[in-house]
Amino acid sequence: MALTVVGSIAFDAVETPTARRDRLLGGSAVHFALASSFLAETRVVGPVGDDFGDAEYAVLRARGVHTDDIEHVAGGTTFFWAGRYERDVNVRHTLQTDLNVFEDFRPKLSAASREADTVFLANIQPDLQREVREQCEAARFVALDSMNLWIDIARESLVRTIGLVDCVILNDGELKQLVDEPNLVRAARAVLRLGPSVVVAKQGEYGAAMFTEDGFFGLPAYPTPDVVDPTGAGDTFAGGFMGFVAAQEGEIGEEQLRAAMAYGTALASFNVEAFGTERMQTLTPAEISARVDELERITRFAACGFPARG
Amino acid sequence: MALTVVGSIAFDAVETPTARRDRLLGGSAVHFALASSFLAETRVVGPVGDDFGDAEYAVLRARGVHTDDIEHVAGGTTFFWAGRYERDVNVRHTLQTDLNVFEDFRPKLSAASREADTVFLANIQPDLQREVREQCEAARFVALDSMNLWIDIARESLVRTIGLVDCVILNDGELKQLVDEPNLVRAARAVLRLGPSVVVAKQGEYGAAMFTEDGFFGLPAYPTPDVVDPTGAGDTFAGGFMGFVAAQEGEIGEEQLRAAMAYGTALASFNVEAFGTERMQTLTPAEISARVDELERITRFAACGFPARG
Repeated sequence: MALTVVGSIAFDAVETPTARRDRLLGGSAVHFALASSFLAETRVVGPVGDDFGDAEYAVLRARGVHTDDIEHVAGGTTFFWAGRYERDVNVRHTLQTDLNVFEDFRPKLSAASREADTVFLANIQPDLQREVREQCEAARFVALDSMNLWIDIARESLVRTIGLVDCVILNDGELKQLVDEPNLVRAARAVLRLGPSVVVAKQGEYGAAMFTEDGFFGLPAYPTPDVVDPTGAGDTFAGGFMGFVAAQEGEIGEEQLRAAMAYGTALASFNVEAFGTERMQTLTPAEISARVDELERITRFAACGFPARG
Repeated sequence: MALTVVGSIAFDAVETPTARRDRLLGGSAVHFALASSFLAETRVVGPVGDDFGDAEYAVLRARGVHTDDIEHVAGGTTFFWAGRYERDVNVRHTLQTDLNVFEDFRPKLSAASREADTVFLANIQPDLQREVREQCEAARFVALDSMNLWIDIARESLVRTIGLVDCVILNDGELKQLVDEPNLVRAARAVLRLGPSVVVAKQGEYGAAMFTEDGFFGLPAYPTPDVVDPTGAGDTFAGGFMGFVAAQEGEIGEEQLRAAMAYGTALASFNVEAFGTERMQTLTPAEISARVDELERITRFAACGFPARG
């Protein structure tokens, strides 16, 4: 029932055509943990610098996230990312990336983090993901994210790590790139052959698709007219997905994984409604439930029978 | 219960990385009609030249499509389009477009075509679409398609025509361009304000979304690993959608429109499995029913209840 996430903790500067924020709490592990915290007890493993203070810890702790494994690097500076979104928020430009303390990050997991039964390896160097995976012997469900950089420069290591996890959660473009296959169905099947039993393709404004050995599940994004800041939507999705999985006491089968997709989708749709983690700080379980129910309603149909015609 | 489609009839030359066909039966009205013919009695209105012969008529007639309103322009040549798809079939290059007899096309509807209760105005000049719309006084459900060209050079006319139809079926990029709004939900709502009660956004490999006055419905594409030739997928989708609508004797409400989306999606997924209209010529009603049922299965989920956590 406990969930550990290993990944980045960051400050983000975000520009949109109508607003600008210089110092937003961000990073994959933070976005993930704030989402998963609604569903499961969550521990964050990641590095911060001297500029990461009480206010930032308080955001995580207010949601019950365990911060003991956040590694404070004395004299260091927290990972910083700056980006600009166009009027079409699907178009993003990275303006600056300062890895800072993240550059030399070697995850150190406490006993409590290692004993989690559900583990998410957010987007970090695949050798490090594998080190973490091997430390978490008790885990019954481990998922990873990655990015085009690692596919470009460390594909072999990434493939080895994928062979050790239960679930891969990537953007659909990354899945296609990983196995050099432009058809998503074929790409996902090729990734399943690397070892995992579940492959999730994140599709941004179009939603997400899930491939398992004998199944497919597709879910549109929640249709929000108010996208303020998409930063962290993918990690928030993963947090909702993995949080739901971690909350399951019994079997994690197709039915549970589909519901997990809905929780991920719902949480991601909230995250984009405000800058950084702001929306997640005010979100309530009742709002999440209502949106998951709405997702069910807006995707349901009945075939109505085939009209009688040859 | 009768359906009329007005649009192009064409020969297409299609290249993919592994194959090439020089003379495929195509055109929006043809792709549409072959799909709709499985669900409703369909009449095609469109021009052909001397090169359009018995073999082509036979394809339509084999599916029971009425071809009396196909206008044979003596001495003319049928609309010709040539395109090339990359290994990623989502990337298409138009190599040649010869409008030929389509350039001076003025739709002439027989009494039977005018009396259809369901009408689809495929992608033609919006003034012509409006002329057709005004002739079809008995129609209870009229939809149109269009393209970026008309938004660029005849937007005012297109908007007037949209004001006279019940349903707009466009690619999501075209919807956004039409009202200069990058958020799809806002774009669709803006198009609804132009007059129609239904707006359908075609999203290619991602599926389709439908917006009505008080509703949203999202449906992923059927996950096919075997995309041979995507030409005509959008028109085939529209044919399945409108064919289902035409087949309804009673009310066309949200429930029927959602099922129509599923039939459009299923038919489009077959169309891309072979070149041109080849797959539609061998398709059976049982295959369509089975795929619609499968679409229902691969999109269904239950929320499973919110895990007990704050």
